[in-house]
Amino acid sequence: MGPGPSPVHPRVLRAMSTPLVGHLDPAFVELMDDVQDLLRYTFRTENQWTIPVSGTGSAAMEAAFGNVVEPGDTVLVPTNGYFGGRMASMVERAGGEVVEVDAPWGEPLDPAAVQDAFDTHQPDVFGFVHAETSTGVLQPNVPELTDIAHSHDALVVADTVTSLGGVELKVDEWDVDVAYSGAQKCLSCPPGASPLTLNDRAMEKVLSREEESRSWYLDLSLLEGYWGEERSYHHTAPITNVYALREALRLVAEEGIEERWARHERVAGALKAGVEAMGLEMNAPDEYWLPSLNAVRVPEGVDDGAVIDHVLEKYDLEIASGLGDLEGDIFRIGCMGHGARAENVTLLLGALADALEEQGYEADAGAALAAARDQL
Amino acid sequence: MGPGPSPVHPRVLRAMSTPLVGHLDPAFVELMDDVQDLLRYTFRTENQWTIPVSGTGSAAMEAAFGNVVEPGDTVLVPTNGYFGGRMASMVERAGGEVVEVDAPWGEPLDPAAVQDAFDTHQPDVFGFVHAETSTGVLQPNVPELTDIAHSHDALVVADTVTSLGGVELKVDEWDVDVAYSGAQKCLSCPPGASPLTLNDRAMEKVLSREEESRSWYLDLSLLEGYWGEERSYHHTAPITNVYALREALRLVAEEGIEERWARHERVAGALKAGVEAMGLEMNAPDEYWLPSLNAVRVPEGVDDGAVIDHVLEKYDLEIASGLGDLEGDIFRIGCMGHGARAENVTLLLGALADALEEQGYEADAGAALAAARDQL
Repeated sequence: MGPGPSPVHPRVLRAMSTPLVGHLDPAFVELMDDVQDLLRYTFRTENQWTIPVSGTGSAAMEAAFGNVVEPGDTVLVPTNGYFGGRMASMVERAGGEVVEVDAPWGEPLDPAAVQDAFDTHQPDVFGFVHAETSTGVLQPNVPELTDIAHSHDALVVADTVTSLGGVELKVDEWDVDVAYSGAQKCLSCPPGASPLTLNDRAMEKVLSREEESRSWYLDLSLLEGYWGEERSYHHTAPITNVYALREALRLVAEEGIEERWARHERVAGALKAGVEAMGLEMNAPDEYWLPSLNAVRVPEGVDDGAVIDHVLEKYDLEIASGLGDLEGDIFRIGCMGHGARAENVTLLLGALADALEEQGYEADAGAALAAARDQL
Repeated sequence: MGPGPSPVHPRVLRAMSTPLVGHLDPAFVELMDDVQDLLRYTFRTENQWTIPVSGTGSAAMEAAFGNVVEPGDTVLVPTNGYFGGRMASMVERAGGEVVEVDAPWGEPLDPAAVQDAFDTHQPDVFGFVHAETSTGVLQPNVPELTDIAHSHDALVVADTVTSLGGVELKVDEWDVDVAYSGAQKCLSCPPGASPLTLNDRAMEKVLSREEESRSWYLDLSLLEGYWGEERSYHHTAPITNVYALREALRLVAEEGIEERWARHERVAGALKAGVEAMGLEMNAPDEYWLPSLNAVRVPEGVDDGAVIDHVLEKYDLEIASGLGDLEGDIFRIGCMGHGARAENVTLLLGALADALEEQGYEADAGAALAAARDQL
């Protein structure tokens, strides 16, 4: 129950042990079509350019920024979490100029601040984080943000690493131009092939770049040849990871994407009710609460590292500490994909109560379980 | 028996279905040490900077060129195969200037030509392909090439994608500064985590770059933090692929690297003897023959595509056609890792003889099997 990799469903683990076919084998080409269709379903998009990138989530992130950002472009990125900083670094390496829209760590972006930043800087591209893994904050008002960007003729790139397949995300309805994700969060798939989708507007910019993108491996104009109609060789795809991603996405489709969002909200809601009944506080207010990543304030006088070690050593359960500005201030507790189940929440509450008691904090495990039980 | 992915050993497939731990879990950190030690053994190097890159072979290739090449550097690349062209494209994207040393497709580089190219262009970096998958040519005289480069103060980057773990390769003894490879060739591991090694001389250049490398994902100065002493978070590693690579490398160590080279030479030698006994011709002369990738000339009047389809459909056996300058001229038959076994060679010879007979070419399967048998 850390920030990912999340627990993998046995069917997906089994898919990982399938013998390999070649990356140009007719059987694999059919499987590529399946994966693309299932990714479209999960992203809620009709985008033709919907593929798994051959690397972990940060590779999909760099494929997005490295292709959409041309040297000289101005790119607006947020400062309210760890991953805005990563965006800035990727943009600079792509030859773009970074401008920022500010919000404190642990808060979402305010549309008014985004509007101001657009009026001041007139950026060409706007990146934002839909679900911030470092702070447990879900960005609300996404359609408002994309409206602002489009009225300034900018492209919108959304980091959906910790939302895809776990919380409501509607790429087409919300008019997001580019979205990328990881496999190892709410899709509960081993990392190594990472979802990316671009609409025609974004792909048109990519295909009409004056200068080639700075990565050959992640060049979408070349990947088009492999994932598009031609099926021509670019690089060897991570065959096994694509098998696994297909199986993980099939599980999403079998459950139904809206039912899956509802399950995450219900099960993580039980987790939240439980920790609150122990007297702990969520870092994000309810309006911005991110069910897939629960940021819980470390109580006064408690050593977060000791708690994390205790639950790992005694219960074989992973939770994580804060990152960046929130280091030492929060626990990060994942509730993602196959991990979002009653038994995990019940174990977590019991283990956490024990670890807090060890630290001299009075945690009422009974109250926590009672509060959680109703929603499980 | 195509050019890769090669058949994966059951132990490696089983490792792929191991449940995941986090990329910062103490258990995973131990496993990272194992993988690094086993990679050093396989590369025949003591290099500290020996890691699996989080992507397929081309990601390791771009990690090599993208970090070692600084904007303004002159880089010498070969023209004698498909992968020299890929090097050139990566070098240009890294901001380097490409100069070439020529040799025809299907021939290795001549040290005299390399010497001339050095005298003319004074390159900062020299890339060459140790085992050319597109032509089935093994580059001999590697120490001669590295000597030339070092006497001109240049760094040497070797593409060992189709040699690592299959044919003799001695990174330290041959004084190669940087070598990269893939998992899915002679290591018989699913692609997704790819070997890379750099000596201190190369890493010193990487760590003293004036400008950051153009990829965040593949920036070795950042990856140093994760794979080095600190173990600090950079990106989520492809956990499962690292499990698999460890198991594949354990199989290398159990067999012994020199025994493994000898097995490839013996089994592929049987394959070669067999196709020659059918009257077919190898594309490379014996001095440059690459056991892991056998390039066999397509006989006059035979349709290579029909042969490839026939052996795939009737025998479920993959072989490949030529690439680039050799398209239509050769079959490419892999004999790699777990695939380099008597049963595969015997099946290949029988299936190929059948497919050629279908095309009106008289192939004596009995003679082929008799010629192969002695070495199997």
